[in-house]
Amino acid sequence: MKWNDTAVTKKLRIDYPIIQAGMAGGPTTPELVAAVSNAGGLGTLGAGYMTSESMRIDIEKIRKLTDRPFAVNLFVPENTEIDADKVSNSNRLLRPIREKLNLSDPLAVRKPTLEVFRKQLDVVVETQVSVCSFTFGIPDQSIIAELRGRNIRVIGTATTVNEAILNERAGMEMVVVQGSEAGGHRGTFNVPFEEGMVGAMALIPQTVDAVHIPVIAAGGIMDGRGVLAARILGAAAVQMGTAFLTCSECGINEWHKKLLRNQTEMDTVVTAAFSGKPARGIRNKFIQRFDQFAPLFPPYPIQNQLTQDIRKEASKQKNPDWLSMWAGQGLRMSKACSAAELMKRIIVGIDHLSF
Amino acid sequence: MKWNDTAVTKKLRIDYPIIQAGMAGGPTTPELVAAVSNAGGLGTLGAGYMTSESMRIDIEKIRKLTDRPFAVNLFVPENTEIDADKVSNSNRLLRPIREKLNLSDPLAVRKPTLEVFRKQLDVVVETQVSVCSFTFGIPDQSIIAELRGRNIRVIGTATTVNEAILNERAGMEMVVVQGSEAGGHRGTFNVPFEEGMVGAMALIPQTVDAVHIPVIAAGGIMDGRGVLAARILGAAAVQMGTAFLTCSECGINEWHKKLLRNQTEMDTVVTAAFSGKPARGIRNKFIQRFDQFAPLFPPYPIQNQLTQDIRKEASKQKNPDWLSMWAGQGLRMSKACSAAELMKRIIVGIDHLSF
Repeated sequence: MKWNDTAVTKKLRIDYPIIQAGMAGGPTTPELVAAVSNAGGLGTLGAGYMTSESMRIDIEKIRKLTDRPFAVNLFVPENTEIDADKVSNSNRLLRPIREKLNLSDPLAVRKPTLEVFRKQLDVVVETQVSVCSFTFGIPDQSIIAELRGRNIRVIGTATTVNEAILNERAGMEMVVVQGSEAGGHRGTFNVPFEEGMVGAMALIPQTVDAVHIPVIAAGGIMDGRGVLAARILGAAAVQMGTAFLTCSECGINEWHKKLLRNQTEMDTVVTAAFSGKPARGIRNKFIQRFDQFAPLFPPYPIQNQLTQDIRKEASKQKNPDWLSMWAGQGLRMSKACSAAELMKRIIVGIDHLSF
Repeated sequence: MKWNDTAVTKKLRIDYPIIQAGMAGGPTTPELVAAVSNAGGLGTLGAGYMTSESMRIDIEKIRKLTDRPFAVNLFVPENTEIDADKVSNSNRLLRPIREKLNLSDPLAVRKPTLEVFRKQLDVVVETQVSVCSFTFGIPDQSIIAELRGRNIRVIGTATTVNEAILNERAGMEMVVVQGSEAGGHRGTFNVPFEEGMVGAMALIPQTVDAVHIPVIAAGGIMDGRGVLAARILGAAAVQMGTAFLTCSECGINEWHKKLLRNQTEMDTVVTAAFSGKPARGIRNKFIQRFDQFAPLFPPYPIQNQLTQDIRKEASKQKNPDWLSMWAGQGLRMSKACSAAELMKRIIVGIDHLSF
């Protein structure tokens, strides 16, 4: 078994079965995406929160930096009604934090619409991006058919075997399985999130046994050991997020990267308090104070809108207390280096495992 | 790298780096322990709840079935005071279940004493068992020194990197790291249990990087893929519990084994309701009803005593509703076979991975 010759490398026309996760909200700069793709992996623009206009701009920038394949990751919109009581709960409870940060009253919330998603898809189609991956559910089969028809590879996300099977049935060409170790939002869409908190060691082989499409492993994978272990468990590729967060090209602040490099496997927790949807991040004051109130807050993406100004301002003020710092459980293995260097370390690491 | 030639196989004088976990309370019959050791692994008698007398009897039985090394697993006693309010909470809440099962009033609880543990250790020393492993903490250094002085190998249990370091410092010769996937009780002893819920994919390499003693990986490992993946992540051996639960020699009922074989990665949950200490098992009526009350119940091992008659009677009545059915997240990979056959499947499976 050659570790880097898999159904995924063939299908995506990349050298190494290593995908940089589409971390939304800033980390995936065009520089990061291009650097990963130039190093033989697959960079991903985390476009979940982007307008179609800024997507177009970033895709152009990536194209100037690489002629290799790269991916765009989109969030499948959920049908969320705005519950005024929950919105006012959230605003009331968050008021002291806004005051601390000298923020004015929260903005009015917008109901998520299918329109934004459709515009994002239009950019993917028009710019003829190589790969489009999806999180938070499965888009309509017509969308999957449209992308495939235009020779754009489609990748789904699952946190259980059944979710992987649903992705396969819907026509996804490969599926990311997100172990409970993974940082950021849980991709669970078909069961209560607790049932989708399955460790990668158990999730990968059970999914591989149940689906025919290639499985891409995510969660806790930080170096060559993790990549090769995932391959042995049957994955045809890995998706790594946290490992790329501390790379020089990543769009988060340097102080935030340094903070991440000093955390351990014990320092993350899954909370719905920031966004209304469970996500793994560094345990900080915000989580300690508000996790208990998560059931009173509106669901994703409404709560995400309600905390957006707080998270943005905290980041600007270099204040880790009120910022969401998404990260997985492999933090002790974080490195300060460029994405090309990280890719090289991973590949050399695998060669040194000398199987 | 030869997968079966490791610091653990050398030190324990076994053929394969596969340890059958010391599952307490019945599963680890002398037949199971001996079968695993005879197949070249290390069987473990789960003696945590056993009297010294029954330990002695079982060790004799094992010796009649094998001349290979085997282990005994003990629970390090915790200093627990009996809180009368919590005991009466528990008895009051459990009364309807006792009535359903035609059970009389609960027995009086006994405070755990160091005396029982000392008697268990005396049996280990007198019978000169090859290996003694510990869960729920680290015994006094004098005990570790005593066992090592008598050429009995000592293995500790950790759920975080720091707990592994503490085991190493205390003189443990190797350490099991228990990933969040693992079935049964969490071995966490140094932090709130949530901080010790780390997936094996992240926990194994981070521990290997931090300690010098050999690391034994546990959690979600069910077949050759898991064993080889754990080795690649740096573990010198694996410990498997759930995989051996459905073996023919295992001491749980046949209907219980069949039930386990029909569960999936989504069907387990971690609860402290049965014993007062968080443990992973099949989500059933007991957990659905009582998990919410766990903070009102007395801590381990008091709550464990209070639910003992319920669990025992439920098992007798073949009623899965009120029984603790400990299991990990790899259940789809469960097999109905003998322990020798399972060992063979694992080994052949690794050979077929053809690295």
